[in-house]
Amino acid sequence: MQAPFSTLTAFRETLGTAPGADTAAIAGAQDRNAQLTKPPGALGRLEDLAIWYAGWRGTAQPQLKAPQVVIFAGNHGVCAQGVSAFPSEVTAQMVANFEHGGAAINQLSKAFEAKMDVHALSLDTPTADFTQSPAMTEAEAVEALQTGWNAVDPDADLLVTGEMGIGNTTSAAAVAAAVLGGDAADWTGRGTGVDDAGLTRKTQVVAQGLALHASHDPLEALRCLGGRELAAMAGAIAAARHHRIPVILDGFICSAAAAVLEKAMPGALDHAVAGHLSAEGAHQKMLDALGKVPLLNLGLRLGEGSGAALAIGVLKGAIACHSGMATFAEAGVSDG
Amino acid sequence: MQAPFSTLTAFRETLGTAPGADTAAIAGAQDRNAQLTKPPGALGRLEDLAIWYAGWRGTAQPQLKAPQVVIFAGNHGVCAQGVSAFPSEVTAQMVANFEHGGAAINQLSKAFEAKMDVHALSLDTPTADFTQSPAMTEAEAVEALQTGWNAVDPDADLLVTGEMGIGNTTSAAAVAAAVLGGDAADWTGRGTGVDDAGLTRKTQVVAQGLALHASHDPLEALRCLGGRELAAMAGAIAAARHHRIPVILDGFICSAAAAVLEKAMPGALDHAVAGHLSAEGAHQKMLDALGKVPLLNLGLRLGEGSGAALAIGVLKGAIACHSGMATFAEAGVSDG
Repeated sequence: MQAPFSTLTAFRETLGTAPGADTAAIAGAQDRNAQLTKPPGALGRLEDLAIWYAGWRGTAQPQLKAPQVVIFAGNHGVCAQGVSAFPSEVTAQMVANFEHGGAAINQLSKAFEAKMDVHALSLDTPTADFTQSPAMTEAEAVEALQTGWNAVDPDADLLVTGEMGIGNTTSAAAVAAAVLGGDAADWTGRGTGVDDAGLTRKTQVVAQGLALHASHDPLEALRCLGGRELAAMAGAIAAARHHRIPVILDGFICSAAAAVLEKAMPGALDHAVAGHLSAEGAHQKMLDALGKVPLLNLGLRLGEGSGAALAIGVLKGAIACHSGMATFAEAGVSDG
Repeated sequence: MQAPFSTLTAFRETLGTAPGADTAAIAGAQDRNAQLTKPPGALGRLEDLAIWYAGWRGTAQPQLKAPQVVIFAGNHGVCAQGVSAFPSEVTAQMVANFEHGGAAINQLSKAFEAKMDVHALSLDTPTADFTQSPAMTEAEAVEALQTGWNAVDPDADLLVTGEMGIGNTTSAAAVAAAVLGGDAADWTGRGTGVDDAGLTRKTQVVAQGLALHASHDPLEALRCLGGRELAAMAGAIAAARHHRIPVILDGFICSAAAAVLEKAMPGALDHAVAGHLSAEGAHQKMLDALGKVPLLNLGLRLGEGSGAALAIGVLKGAIACHSGMATFAEAGVSDG
């Protein structure tokens, strides 16, 4: 389905018309869960995950068969300020690596049988340096949101959004500070691995961006401080909601994009779980602000959707148990 | 291969002849890891896992293709003391459920493409009530260790050991206290869900067992306080080491069985990682004593190997990345 918006205002209105979960399916899944051959609650968070998933898929006994991983890549004018340990050329080089199957996300998508798509967003035209002017015009921001929206396969039954973009932890930190509050130092971390001097410079750059673009509107923050891949992730997560496709959020950058949605429309992330806690310093703070508890905590800080893709395995296990296990009655097992 | 021991003393000697990891494979894997298309360390613990796995498999670029899940079931005389929320018949009922494919571990084994085997250990002859006499004779303990040893497929490339046995958190708590120190209250938890009165009774039962069987020898503690399924798990974990098959430990009961090995022969668990942190109260304390950091923490407390089986996905992801990713040179990506 083509994106049903062509302005930021219309995108916000689209968020407001998002469907909720199916309460009958949730009740049915809870009922089923209570009858499965295990002590009550013994599968812990897997039980909650399966019930949540059932609600969004609209059936008490769902299957997970068609996960989709979508990667968006963008370049950032703010790299001119020396905020990354890697040069901007690496964004396009990594897109080629994705296309040739050589990146971490390729291996993880294969391991968990997810379809993987890559969208390179105007890599030759980086966003503007946000210390000088807004990163994107409204037209650019809307185009990126639309690309994200249109990238979602309506037949997918799970979505992971990932990103690649040298400089994008800087953009994500600025967006997070603008939409969640706090100052630059609260949100700025080492990204791919800047040294102490690099971290100081990066924090100053984020602070400059925040001073220049003081709007408290989340979509304006995304436009002025974000990047195309952040906007595309936001568009994709919104589209997934429209199709009732559950989402696993990735790390710091994905969560910053998601935070824009949550602040623009509270509840916009009800169809999303946090896949993992990133090693990027401020991710815990970001997840706390979103009220999300990560499924995994393994020190990843790669981006690409890698932490979320790894969490597909957890969700697969949860749904396999919920929908495949015998009930006490079916198995002839005494019920406590 | 048939178990190369027929006494507890000989089993201990077998532990002493266990092979170590392949240091050349570890060095090769570290070298490969440093060249992969990602910032150094960005895959966090996945990198450590892949290198560890490479060392045990003896190759710098390993595959994970043949995981084996082995479930052992046993019955416990100590159930006469009213320590469980479920009756002992449930052990055999759940074995039938495993055999018919209806349990959680069946779904998880299928989800992660693991071969699953079930061994019911003399269910009609429970171990003796350890508040009255040793749970097992030496012959019974050795037979269970041998069953565990022989259950491991030498061609497997990963082992998960699971268990089913009404009353076995009581045995595991007693074994843990005996081999790791502390008193009954430190190790006794709610298992499948006893109430406050049940927990008090269970703690007293564990204390009685500890008072009656004061040996500090780990294998004697296993014999006097454990159960057949605990001994079988210990035998299987030891056999895996013999075959250089890496092991994912499950929760409280599996870890108690593993603790016997570690105390009988320090380093005996170097080929094992902790799959998850169980919600059974004392599991964190047990993992701390073993120096293991769990891969998952999702509130599971089911046993059956379920938490470890779920962690197969994490290990699969780690190895897929390590062995499948392109290097900077192969992909033509600039290296920082």
